[in-house]
Amino acid sequence: MADQRRAGVVGLGLIGGSLGLDLQALGWEVQGLVHRQETADRALARGLVQHVSTDPACLASCDLVILALPIARLLDPDPALIAALPPTAVVTDVGSVKAPVLEAWRHLHPRFVASHPMAGTAEAGVDAGISGLFRGRPWIATPDAQTDASALRVVQEVAVALGSLWTVASAAQHDQAVALISHVPVFVSAALLRAAGDERDPEIRQLAMTLASSGFADTSRVGGGNPDLGVAMASGNRDAVLKGLAAYRWSLEQLEDAVMKENWDQLGQELARTQSLRPAFLSRADASGG
Amino acid sequence: MADQRRAGVVGLGLIGGSLGLDLQALGWEVQGLVHRQETADRALARGLVQHVSTDPACLASCDLVILALPIARLLDPDPALIAALPPTAVVTDVGSVKAPVLEAWRHLHPRFVASHPMAGTAEAGVDAGISGLFRGRPWIATPDAQTDASALRVVQEVAVALGSLWTVASAAQHDQAVALISHVPVFVSAALLRAAGDERDPEIRQLAMTLASSGFADTSRVGGGNPDLGVAMASGNRDAVLKGLAAYRWSLEQLEDAVMKENWDQLGQELARTQSLRPAFLSRADASGG
Repeated sequence: MADQRRAGVVGLGLIGGSLGLDLQALGWEVQGLVHRQETADRALARGLVQHVSTDPACLASCDLVILALPIARLLDPDPALIAALPPTAVVTDVGSVKAPVLEAWRHLHPRFVASHPMAGTAEAGVDAGISGLFRGRPWIATPDAQTDASALRVVQEVAVALGSLWTVASAAQHDQAVALISHVPVFVSAALLRAAGDERDPEIRQLAMTLASSGFADTSRVGGGNPDLGVAMASGNRDAVLKGLAAYRWSLEQLEDAVMKENWDQLGQELARTQSLRPAFLSRADASGG
Repeated sequence: MADQRRAGVVGLGLIGGSLGLDLQALGWEVQGLVHRQETADRALARGLVQHVSTDPACLASCDLVILALPIARLLDPDPALIAALPPTAVVTDVGSVKAPVLEAWRHLHPRFVASHPMAGTAEAGVDAGISGLFRGRPWIATPDAQTDASALRVVQEVAVALGSLWTVASAAQHDQAVALISHVPVFVSAALLRAAGDERDPEIRQLAMTLASSGFADTSRVGGGNPDLGVAMASGNRDAVLKGLAAYRWSLEQLEDAVMKENWDQLGQELARTQSLRPAFLSRADASGG
């Protein structure tokens, strides 16, 4: 076992726990690092990792460290964690916003690779991790000119071995794309619930609740999700979200304008275009949870 | 069979065909009226009705006539159809917008009852009709002061016998509620597809298409639907749709404003509220197709 590669996984929630399971299946020795002893015990009981500790020193001999932490903790990392990262290890993260992470970590570790495996967010915590979570899902790396090429290759090898679809983009492009397809929809959808729920006539409001069916249910789903997640998206990716919302508002105004002017030909053309646009965004939708 | 009640169903698409099947199952003799002989033949072959004709005179001895026609044809009805309606029959429609229908038909027949069974719209045509379509779904009547009370009772009896959830509202309330939960979502959703599809940077656009997952798929579903249906909603219910869109825009601006001002507490409260609002709109979502 002397040649077995050693991975450290920091945080054992949905992403970290799933990584622990899959990395073990690929033959890695996996060391977990968590905050609380209770989580450590549960992670061991679930077999998410072979070793677990609450002491960052446990990362000492790792070849690879994956920071599976919430964005807020990634942007303001524990100094003890940084001090414990072996300088020769490849270090990567799983954060859903990349420009600020890259900005923060560029100077914290010489072999840091900013990356984002796109996996579901409905479940959370030490009981959420499952095998095969990354299979068929995109894993985007956002290197910059300073990123260590050999470190990037290691992360790519791991992502591909886990069954992910490897993609490389700039951090800015990643953040804008994620704003458009993941963050903006939350606010678009929440505003619909807000508009229907704020209807002033109580009889209309009650009728709307009675009549709402699958169309409303689908359009309002992500707007009725975890508020903390929505705030994290907006605060972590604020500029891209605002840019996406501005583009969205402009799009909606074009449709509204056609209705206002009773320009049914134009409205029909717009809706024919959105109908034809949708399939291009659906190639992976069945296989994913985000 | 002398006492068997006779129903005329005008139009044998999803709603009309399903009504034909269910009314026969309840013991009604059902007479269909369609435009084309080909549709008539197919309706008979499918057993949607016992009798079918392309001549409005076939409605002569009907006790009940259900106008299962598209809104446009309901608002501009064939004079031969109006002339053929027995003055003693109860006449109702199934249109998804009620104020203009009531306005048009108030003076066309003394026993007209404006009503709207809420049933799925994904399928259409003479092959779409199925048994039990109305079971567990709302059927809203929108009578006004001139509506014949005994005619309203007949429609209620039929709707309840078909398993519908009977609801009475004013036409204006109905149209505003339907705008909020069915029509506005189409434009809200279409604008999202348009914003993502119009992203100017081709690399970001391609990345967005690659990364889009179930959240985007759900939020964009009704915006990627049949363009003709979207135009019919907007043109048939224009005032209520514009009012709903204005309320929607205001709601979105409140959320956007919180992001702009980095007021994360307010944004969190807003999203907690939309999360708590959603269940009230979902009571029937599983059972419905609209």
